[in-house]
Amino acid sequence: MVDDGCIFCTIVHGRADASIVHEDESVIAFMDLRPVNPGHLLVVPKTHSVGLEDLPEDVGVQVWKVAHRLGRALRRSGLRCEGVNLLLADGEAAFQEVFHVHLHVIPRFTGDPFRIGSDWRVHEREQLDEASAAVRGGLAALDSLQR
Amino acid sequence: MVDDGCIFCTIVHGRADASIVHEDESVIAFMDLRPVNPGHLLVVPKTHSVGLEDLPEDVGVQVWKVAHRLGRALRRSGLRCEGVNLLLADGEAAFQEVFHVHLHVIPRFTGDPFRIGSDWRVHEREQLDEASAAVRGGLAALDSLQR
Repeated sequence: MVDDGCIFCTIVHGRADASIVHEDESVIAFMDLRPVNPGHLLVVPKTHSVGLEDLPEDVGVQVWKVAHRLGRALRRSGLRCEGVNLLLADGEAAFQEVFHVHLHVIPRFTGDPFRIGSDWRVHEREQLDEASAAVRGGLAALDSLQR
Repeated sequence: MVDDGCIFCTIVHGRADASIVHEDESVIAFMDLRPVNPGHLLVVPKTHSVGLEDLPEDVGVQVWKVAHRLGRALRRSGLRCEGVNLLLADGEAAFQEVFHVHLHVIPRFTGDPFRIGSDWRVHEREQLDEASAAVRGGLAALDSLQR
Protein backbone atom coordinates (compact mmCIF):
# COMPACT_ATOMS: atom_id res chain seq x y z
CA MET A 1 0.00 0.00 0.00
CA VAL A 2 1.22 3.49 -0.83
CA ASP A 3 0.09 6.63 0.95
CA ASP A 4 0.44 9.45 -1.59
CA GLY A 5 0.77 12.15 1.05
CA CYS A 6 3.55 10.29 2.87
CA ILE A 7 7.13 11.52 2.43
CA PHE A 8 8.60 8.11 3.34
CA CYS A 9 6.42 6.36 0.70
CA THR A 10 7.67 8.98 -1.78
CA ILE A 11 11.29 8.11 -0.86
CA VAL A 12 10.58 4.34 -1.07
CA HIS A 13 9.30 4.86 -4.62
CA GLY A 14 12.31 6.95 -5.64
CA ARG A 15 10.31 10.14 -6.13
CA ALA A 16 12.10 12.18 -3.45
CA ASP A 17 15.78 12.68 -2.61
CA ALA A 18 17.30 10.58 0.16
CA SER A 19 20.80 9.49 1.16
CA ILE A 20 20.18 5.74 1.19
CA VAL A 21 22.51 3.30 2.96
CA HIS A 22 20.52 0.05 2.74
CA GLU A 23 17.65 -1.42 0.75
CA ASP A 24 16.19 -4.92 0.72
CA GLU A 25 12.84 -6.49 -0.16
CA SER A 26 10.91 -5.04 2.77
CA VAL A 27 13.02 -2.27 4.33
CA ILE A 28 14.94 0.87 3.34
CA ALA A 29 17.36 2.92 5.48
CA PHE A 30 18.46 6.48 4.84
CA MET A 31 19.91 9.53 6.63
CA ASP A 32 17.58 11.62 8.81
CA LEU A 33 17.25 15.15 7.35
CA ARG A 34 17.51 16.65 10.88
CA PRO A 35 20.18 14.47 12.43
CA VAL A 36 20.93 14.59 16.15
CA ASN A 37 24.50 13.82 15.02
CA PRO A 38 26.06 13.03 11.61
CA GLY A 39 25.17 9.39 10.84
CA HIS A 40 21.63 9.53 12.28
CA LEU A 41 19.62 6.96 10.29
CA LEU A 42 15.99 5.98 9.81
CA VAL A 43 14.99 2.38 9.11
CA VAL A 44 11.64 2.33 7.32
CA PRO A 45 9.39 -0.49 6.06
CA LYS A 46 8.68 -0.12 2.33
CA THR A 47 4.98 -0.81 2.75
CA HIS A 48 3.08 1.97 4.52
CA SER A 49 2.30 1.22 8.16
CA VAL A 50 1.45 4.02 10.58
CA GLY A 51 2.71 2.44 13.78
CA LEU A 52 3.21 -0.71 15.85
CA GLU A 53 -0.49 -1.58 15.59
CA ASP A 54 -0.59 -2.09 11.80
CA LEU A 55 3.07 -3.13 11.29
CA PRO A 56 3.24 -6.83 10.27
CA GLU A 57 5.40 -8.83 12.72
CA ASP A 58 7.80 -10.11 10.03
CA VAL A 59 8.37 -6.62 8.61
CA GLY A 60 9.02 -5.31 12.12
CA VAL A 61 11.64 -8.04 12.60
CA GLN A 62 13.43 -6.96 9.42
CA VAL A 63 13.36 -3.29 10.56
CA TRP A 64 14.99 -4.39 13.82
CA LYS A 65 17.61 -6.61 12.11
CA VAL A 66 18.68 -3.77 9.81
CA ALA A 67 18.81 -1.31 12.75
CA HIS A 68 20.92 -3.75 14.80
CA ARG A 69 23.35 -4.08 11.90
CA LEU A 70 23.46 -0.32 11.25
CA GLY A 71 24.15 0.35 14.93
CA ARG A 72 27.21 -1.89 14.67
CA ALA A 73 28.19 -0.33 11.32
CA LEU A 74 28.13 3.18 12.82
CA ARG A 75 30.89 2.15 15.23
CA ARG A 76 32.99 1.16 12.20
CA SER A 77 32.08 4.14 10.00
CA GLY A 78 34.72 6.66 11.02
CA LEU A 79 31.89 8.98 12.13
CA ARG A 80 31.97 10.08 15.76
CA CYS A 81 30.17 7.25 17.58
CA GLU A 82 30.82 6.32 21.22
CA GLY A 83 27.31 4.92 21.69
CA VAL A 84 24.05 4.28 19.82
CA ASN A 85 20.39 4.98 20.56
CA LEU A 86 17.56 3.13 18.87
CA LEU A 87 14.31 5.06 19.15
CA LEU A 88 10.82 4.50 17.81
CA ALA A 89 7.96 6.96 18.31
CA ASP A 90 4.51 5.42 17.91
CA GLY A 91 1.79 8.08 18.05
CA GLU A 92 1.74 11.85 18.39
CA ALA A 93 1.88 11.64 22.21
CA ALA A 94 5.18 9.73 21.78
CA PHE A 95 6.58 12.51 19.51
CA GLN A 96 5.91 10.71 16.18
CA GLU A 97 6.02 13.33 13.41
CA VAL A 98 5.95 11.27 10.19
CA PHE A 99 3.10 8.77 10.36
CA HIS A 100 4.93 5.96 8.59
CA VAL A 101 6.75 3.67 11.08
CA HIS A 102 10.47 4.41 11.42
CA LEU A 103 13.19 3.30 13.79
CA HIS A 104 15.89 5.91 14.51
CA VAL A 105 19.51 4.71 14.74
CA ILE A 106 21.45 7.55 16.35
CA PRO A 107 25.23 7.67 16.82
CA ARG A 108 26.08 9.31 20.14
CA PHE A 109 29.11 10.90 21.77
CA THR A 110 29.74 12.60 25.11
CA GLY A 111 28.74 16.26 24.95
CA ASP A 112 26.47 15.93 21.88
CA PRO A 113 23.16 17.88 21.83
CA PHE A 114 20.78 14.94 22.46
CA ARG A 115 18.90 15.03 25.77
CA ILE A 116 16.36 12.74 27.43
CA GLY A 117 14.45 13.90 30.48
CA SER A 118 11.88 12.59 32.97
CA ASP A 119 11.40 12.63 36.74
CA TRP A 120 13.00 9.15 37.16
CA ARG A 121 11.31 8.66 40.54
CA VAL A 122 11.47 5.10 41.97
CA HIS A 123 7.99 3.56 42.23
CA GLU A 124 6.88 1.24 45.04
CA ARG A 125 6.65 -2.50 44.35
CA GLU A 126 2.87 -2.37 44.86
CA GLN A 127 2.49 0.23 42.08
CA LEU A 128 4.77 -1.79 39.79
CA ASP A 129 2.80 -4.98 40.46
CA GLU A 130 -0.46 -3.17 39.66
CA ALA A 131 0.99 -1.93 36.37
CA SER A 132 2.30 -5.41 35.51
CA ALA A 133 -1.16 -6.93 36.16
CA ALA A 134 -2.65 -4.33 33.79
CA VAL A 135 -0.07 -5.14 31.10
CA ARG A 136 -0.79 -8.88 31.45
CA GLY A 137 -4.45 -7.98 30.92
CA GLY A 138 -3.44 -6.15 27.74
CA LEU A 139 -1.48 -9.21 26.55
CA ALA A 140 -4.56 -11.40 27.15
CA ALA A 141 -6.72 -8.93 25.18
CA LEU A 142 -4.21 -9.10 22.33
CA ASP A 143 -4.25 -12.92 22.43
CA SER A 144 -8.03 -13.06 22.21
CA LEU A 145 -7.91 -10.64 19.25
CA GLN A 146 -5.51 -12.92 17.36
CA ARG A 147 -7.42 -16.13 18.05
CA MET B 1 26.74 -16.53 30.72
CA VAL B 2 25.89 -14.85 34.01
CA ASP B 3 27.48 -11.63 35.24
CA ASP B 4 27.31 -11.80 39.04
CA GLY B 5 27.45 -8.04 39.48
CA CYS B 6 24.57 -7.47 37.03
CA ILE B 7 21.13 -6.63 38.46
CA PHE B 8 19.34 -7.89 35.33
CA CYS B 9 21.15 -11.26 35.52
CA THR B 10 20.07 -11.41 39.18
CA ILE B 11 16.44 -10.84 38.13
CA VAL B 12 16.70 -13.41 35.31
CA HIS B 13 17.83 -15.99 37.88
CA GLY B 14 15.03 -15.12 40.30
CA ARG B 15 17.35 -13.76 42.96
CA ALA B 16 15.96 -10.20 42.94
CA ASP B 17 12.41 -8.81 42.99
CA ALA B 18 10.82 -7.80 39.72
CA SER B 19 7.29 -7.32 38.43
CA ILE B 20 7.47 -9.70 35.48
CA VAL B 21 4.97 -9.57 32.59
CA HIS B 22 6.55 -12.00 30.12
CA GLU B 23 9.11 -14.78 30.08
CA ASP B 24 10.16 -17.18 27.32
CA GLU B 25 13.26 -19.21 26.46
CA SER B 26 15.51 -16.26 25.64
CA VAL B 27 13.80 -13.09 26.91
CA ILE B 28 12.22 -11.67 30.07
CA ALA B 29 10.16 -8.46 30.43
CA PHE B 30 9.45 -6.60 33.66
CA MET B 31 8.47 -3.16 34.97
CA ASP B 32 11.15 -0.43 35.09
CA LEU B 33 11.79 0.59 38.71
CA ARG B 34 11.91 4.28 37.67
CA PRO B 35 9.09 4.44 35.13
CA VAL B 36 8.57 7.48 32.93
CA ASN B 37 4.88 6.54 33.25
CA PRO B 38 3.05 3.58 34.87
CA GLY B 39 3.46 0.62 32.51
CA HIS B 40 7.07 1.40 31.49
CA LEU B 41 8.66 -1.96 30.65
CA LEU B 42 12.12 -3.36 29.99
CA VAL B 43 12.66 -6.26 27.60
CA VAL B 44 15.87 -8.07 28.49
CA PRO B 45 17.72 -11.06 26.99
CA LYS B 46 18.25 -13.79 29.59
CA THR B 47 21.87 -14.32 28.59
CA HIS B 48 24.17 -11.45 29.53
CA SER B 49 25.05 -9.19 26.60
CA VAL B 50 26.36 -5.67 27.19
CA GLY B 51 25.11 -4.02 24.01
CA LEU B 52 24.35 -4.34 20.30
CA GLU B 53 27.90 -5.51 19.59
CA ASP B 54 27.73 -8.77 21.59
CA LEU B 55 23.96 -9.40 21.29
CA PRO B 56 23.32 -12.46 19.09
CA GLU B 57 21.07 -11.57 16.13
CA ASP B 58 18.39 -14.16 16.96
CA VAL B 59 18.15 -13.03 20.59
CA GLY B 60 17.84 -9.41 19.42
CA VAL B 61 14.98 -10.45 17.14
CA GLN B 62 13.15 -12.02 20.09
CA VAL B 63 13.71 -8.86 22.20
CA TRP B 64 12.14 -6.85 19.38
CA LYS B 65 9.19 -9.24 18.90
CA VAL B 66 8.33 -9.13 22.61
CA ALA B 67 8.64 -5.31 22.65
CA HIS B 68 6.39 -4.98 19.59
CA ARG B 69 3.77 -7.16 21.29
CA LEU B 70 4.07 -5.31 24.62
CA GLY B 71 3.66 -1.96 22.86
CA ARG B 72 0.35 -3.21 21.45
CA ALA B 73 -0.62 -4.73 24.83
CA LEU B 74 -0.08 -1.38 26.60
CA ARG B 75 -2.80 0.17 24.44
CA ARG B 76 -5.18 -2.56 25.70
CA SER B 77 -4.05 -2.51 29.34
CA GLY B 78 -6.31 0.18 30.78
CA LEU B 79 -3.17 2.14 31.72
CA ARG B 80 -2.92 5.62 30.28
CA CYS B 81 -1.36 5.08 26.85
CA GLU B 82 -1.90 7.39 23.87
CA GLY B 83 1.43 6.48 22.30
CA VAL B 84 4.48 4.26 22.81
CA ASN B 85 8.23 4.84 22.67
CA LEU B 86 10.73 2.05 22.15
CA LEU B 87 14.19 3.10 23.30
CA LEU B 88 17.52 1.31 23.51
CA ALA B 89 20.67 2.89 24.95
CA ASP B 90 23.89 1.23 23.81
CA GLY B 91 26.91 2.67 25.62
CA GLU B 92 27.40 5.28 28.33
CA ALA B 93 27.46 8.12 25.77
CA ALA B 94 23.95 6.97 24.75
CA PHE B 95 22.75 7.12 28.39
CA GLN B 96 23.02 3.36 29.07
CA GLU B 97 23.07 2.85 32.86
CA VAL B 98 22.71 -0.94 33.30
CA PHE B 99 25.26 -2.69 31.10
CA HIS B 100 23.02 -5.61 30.14
CA VAL B 101 21.09 -4.89 26.91
CA HIS B 102 17.50 -3.73 27.47
CA LEU B 103 14.80 -2.28 25.25
CA HIS B 104 12.48 0.21 26.97
CA VAL B 105 8.76 0.06 26.10
CA ILE B 106 7.25 3.31 27.39
CA PRO B 107 3.55 4.18 27.39
CA ARG B 108 3.08 7.87 26.61
CA PHE B 109 0.34 10.46 26.98
CA THR B 110 0.10 14.17 26.23
CA GLY B 111 1.52 16.22 29.10
CA ASP B 112 3.57 13.38 30.65
CA PRO B 113 7.05 14.18 32.02
CA PHE B 114 9.12 12.55 29.20
CA ARG B 115 11.16 14.95 27.09
CA ILE B 116 13.52 14.51 24.13
CA GLY B 117 15.72 17.38 22.99
CA SER B 118 18.25 18.19 20.27
CA ASP B 119 18.93 21.09 17.88
CA TRP B 120 16.97 19.42 15.02
CA ARG B 121 18.77 21.52 12.41
CA VAL B 122 18.27 20.45 8.77
CA HIS B 123 21.57 19.29 7.22
CA GLU B 124 22.54 19.88 3.60
CA ARG B 125 22.30 16.99 1.12
CA GLU B 126 26.09 17.04 0.69
CA GLN B 127 26.62 16.44 4.44
CA LEU B 128 24.00 13.68 4.44
CA ASP B 129 25.63 12.00 1.43
CA GLU B 130 29.02 12.13 3.17
CA ALA B 131 27.54 10.52 6.27
CA SER B 132 25.80 7.84 4.20
CA ALA B 133 29.09 6.99 2.42
CA ALA B 134 30.73 6.62 5.84
CA VAL B 135 27.94 4.31 7.07
CA ARG B 136 28.23 2.18 3.92
CA GLY B 137 31.95 1.92 4.74
CA GLY B 138 30.97 0.71 8.21
CA LEU B 139 28.63 -1.90 6.71
CA ALA B 140 31.45 -3.15 4.47
CA ALA B 141 33.78 -3.38 7.50
CA LEU B 142 31.10 -5.40 9.30
CA ASP B 143 30.73 -7.71 6.28
CA SER B 144 34.45 -8.40 6.11
CA LEU B 145 34.41 -9.17 9.86
CA GLN B 146 31.70 -11.77 9.40
CA ARG B 147 33.25 -13.43 6.37
